[in-house]
Amino acid sequence: MTTIQTTSFTVNGRTYQPPARPVVVICLDGSADEYFDAALARGRMPNFQRMSVTGYRGFARGALPSFTNVNNASIVTGVLPSVHGIGGNFFYDTTSGEEVMMNSAKFLRCETIFPAAARAGRKVAVVTAKEKLRDIFASGLLELGGIAFSSEKASQAAKATHGIDCVEALVGQPTPAIYSGEASLYVFRAGVALIERGLADFVYLSTTDFMQHKFAPDAPEAVEFYAGIDEQLGLLLKLGAVIGLTADHGMNSKRKADGSPNVIYLESELTKKFGLGFRVILPITDPYVAHHGALGSFAVVHLPATMTTDGKDGVLRFLNHLSGVTEVYGNNAAEKLELPADRLGDIVVISGRDVVLGRTPEYHDLKAIASGLRSHGGRYEEMVPFLLSERLKPEYAAKVHGDPRNFDIFDFTCNGAAI
Amino acid sequence: MTTIQTTSFTVNGRTYQPPARPVVVICLDGSADEYFDAALARGRMPNFQRMSVTGYRGFARGALPSFTNVNNASIVTGVLPSVHGIGGNFFYDTTSGEEVMMNSAKFLRCETIFPAAARAGRKVAVVTAKEKLRDIFASGLLELGGIAFSSEKASQAAKATHGIDCVEALVGQPTPAIYSGEASLYVFRAGVALIERGLADFVYLSTTDFMQHKFAPDAPEAVEFYAGIDEQLGLLLKLGAVIGLTADHGMNSKRKADGSPNVIYLESELTKKFGLGFRVILPITDPYVAHHGALGSFAVVHLPATMTTDGKDGVLRFLNHLSGVTEVYGNNAAEKLELPADRLGDIVVISGRDVVLGRTPEYHDLKAIASGLRSHGGRYEEMVPFLLSERLKPEYAAKVHGDPRNFDIFDFTCNGAAI
Repeated sequence: MTTIQTTSFTVNGRTYQPPARPVVVICLDGSADEYFDAALARGRMPNFQRMSVTGYRGFARGALPSFTNVNNASIVTGVLPSVHGIGGNFFYDTTSGEEVMMNSAKFLRCETIFPAAARAGRKVAVVTAKEKLRDIFASGLLELGGIAFSSEKASQAAKATHGIDCVEALVGQPTPAIYSGEASLYVFRAGVALIERGLADFVYLSTTDFMQHKFAPDAPEAVEFYAGIDEQLGLLLKLGAVIGLTADHGMNSKRKADGSPNVIYLESELTKKFGLGFRVILPITDPYVAHHGALGSFAVVHLPATMTTDGKDGVLRFLNHLSGVTEVYGNNAAEKLELPADRLGDIVVISGRDVVLGRTPEYHDLKAIASGLRSHGGRYEEMVPFLLSERLKPEYAAKVHGDPRNFDIFDFTCNGAAI
Repeated sequence: MTTIQTTSFTVNGRTYQPPARPVVVICLDGSADEYFDAALARGRMPNFQRMSVTGYRGFARGALPSFTNVNNASIVTGVLPSVHGIGGNFFYDTTSGEEVMMNSAKFLRCETIFPAAARAGRKVAVVTAKEKLRDIFASGLLELGGIAFSSEKASQAAKATHGIDCVEALVGQPTPAIYSGEASLYVFRAGVALIERGLADFVYLSTTDFMQHKFAPDAPEAVEFYAGIDEQLGLLLKLGAVIGLTADHGMNSKRKADGSPNVIYLESELTKKFGLGFRVILPITDPYVAHHGALGSFAVVHLPATMTTDGKDGVLRFLNHLSGVTEVYGNNAAEKLELPADRLGDIVVISGRDVVLGRTPEYHDLKAIASGLRSHGGRYEEMVPFLLSERLKPEYAAKVHGDPRNFDIFDFTCNGAAI
C-alpha cells in the first residue's frame, strides 16, 4: 500500500487532520436508527455491531428541513445551511419568479471539504447514488485530480468529467437501476474498489433512500439491504478504513388508519380561508418522485404580494391552530431553523410524525406511493444515527454530551478517532 | 397455575381483552432507546433481542412535557394529559396562588385501567420505584383487592394500605436506596415474585430514571443495569407473561462544552427584559432533586397580572428569538401540546436537545448534578421505545405505521398480541 498523506487542512473554519489510513465517511440516505436495530437484532450486521462497541454509536441532530440536499451539503461543507446556502431541494426565487431546483454547485456558498483534502495530498473520491448530488460534490474537485461519480450514471463516468472511467469494470457490475437497493450497494462497492486499487484514500459515500421510503425497518427487504451494507462495512474495515457513518434524515410512516397518505394540502387550505395568491413550496421536491410523491413534513409559504402585516398575523394564527401542524415560523424562521434567509419564504410550516404537507390535491400524483407513504422533512426525522469505527478521543467523547450534528461527521472521522 | 380470567373491560373509551396469560406492562423511566442499543450491542440483553425479533420493537411518541407523572398517568389511563389532567409534576394553581405538586390521585380526572381490570377478574398489582407515583396508581384499586406499593417504601407496605405486606420477604431482599439502580431492579423482582406466587396476573411495573440521569447509554454502569433488567425480562417470559414495554420519556445530555449545565434562567431573562411579576413554573420539579436539580427542557410562564395583550405579544416575540429555545406556545399551548388548559400558564417554552430551562440561578442547587446534567422534558425526549413480546395482529401491525403513542401500550399488550 502506498503511504497516505496526512497533512492537515482547513475548510470553512474547521481544521481536519486525517489519519494515515483510508478515511471513509458515509451518508446513509434516510436511514432512521430503527433500520440498524432491526438488522442488528437479527444478527445481520456483525460489523456494525462490533464498531458500535469498539467505536461509538449514538444520535446526532441533522439540519432542517430534514431533506437530502440540505444535509448532504452540510455534511460535505461542515457548516449550517445558513452558511452553505442550500436550504432545500427546491426554492422559489422571488427575483426571477421561478421555482428553482438546488442541485447545482452554483447554489453552494462555500467550498466543500474535498478540494482542500485533495490539495493536502489526499486521493479524494466521492460516490453518490443520486446523480442530482454529483455536481455539488464534484465542485472544485475534478481539477485537482479527484473522482466524483454516481451509481445512477456509472456507465457515463469519463476521465475528463468524472476523474475516472470504466467504473463498471472497476466495480465488476453494470450500472444499477436508481429505484433499487442495488443503487446504494453499488456506491459501497465502488468505494471498496477505489480504496483497494489505491485510487482513493479519502472517500465520501452517499446512498439513496429508495429502500427506506419503500420498506419499514423490520421488512425482510430492508433487513436484507442492511445486511448487504454490513458486508461492505466489513470490506472497508479490512482495508484499514476509519469509518464515520451518519444519515441525512430519518424516515417515518405518514399514513392514515386506512393506509392512505396523511396529507394537509396547505395551498388549498390557505386559499379556502384567505383567498388566492398563496404559493406553497415543498422543498422535498426532486426528480425522484417515486420515493415520496413530493410529500414531506416541511413547507414554505409565500404570501400574496398584497398581504398586510395584520393579514400575515392572521395566517400565522390560522396555521398555529391547524391540526397536524406542529411548528410555525414567521420572522424567526431563518434564525431558528438555521436556514439562508434570502432563499426562504414568509412562513415555514412543519408537520407531525405521521403528517405530510402538500400543495393541492391536483399537484400530487399519489399513484407512485400507493403502497404506503413513508417520508421525512420535519422534526421527527431530524435525529439520525452517528457511528464512528474507532474509540473517541477524550475531547470528542465529551462533545457527544452536547448536541453533536450529523455534519460534524468529517470532524469526528478525521480528528476524533483515538488511533 | 390457576386459570386467568379473560373478561374484557372498558376504561376511558378503550376496550381491553387481555389474554389468559400474565400481562406485564413496563414503563422504564427515562429509557432513551440508546440504552437498549448499547447493552444489546454488547450481547447483554438476549431476551430483549429475541422479543424484538419474535415480537415488535419500534418507537412511540410520549406525551409532552416529557416528564414522569404526565406520561405514567397517560399510560395507566390510556388517554392524553388533556383528559386525565396531569400535565406536569407541578403546576401553579392561580386560584389558590400556590405551586402544587401533582402526585396525588385527587388530580386525576379519570379512572385508571386498574380498577376495571380488577372488576373484570384480574389480579392486579402495581409496583413503582418512586413512592410519589403510588397514590395515582393505587387509586380505586386497593378496595378491589389489588396491590400497589413502591420499592422506595417496600418495608412499609401493609395489607390494609397496599394490599400486601412482608414485601421484603416476598422479594427476598431489603428495601433498596431510592438513588440506585437497585430501586428499579427491585420493582422487576417484585413483579416476578407476585406472578410466581399467583398473587397477580395483571401487572404494571414503573421504574426510576436515576441511572439514566446519571449515566450515558454506553457507561459500564448503564450496560450492567440493562443486563439486570434483561435477566428479569427472561424470568417474566418463563412465567408465560405477555410483555409490553415503553418509557415515559427519553434522556439527553444538557451540558455546555465545559461540562457545566446548559441553562437558560427564564425568570431572570424575562425580569431583566420586562420587569418584575413573572412566575416560571418548571413542571419537572419533584422530590427527587438529585436526578436533575429541577432543570428540564419545558417551562410554563405566568405573566404579570397587569400585562396587556400587546405586552404578551412582546414576550412571545422575545422568547421566539431567544437562543436555545426551540418552541414557544401562547393561546395554542393546551391544544397543540394536548394539556389541560386550566392547569397551564400563559406561555409554554420548550428548549433544545442540550438545553434546560431554569427560574433564577439562586433557585437551583447545582451541586447534586455536578457530575454532568442529563435531563428531559422537551421534544427531544418525546420519542420512546415501544416493545411487545409477541407478534402483532395485522390491525396492530398497521397501527405502528401511524403515530403510536406510549400510552397505547396497554392496548397493544392486551389486544395486539397475535396469540
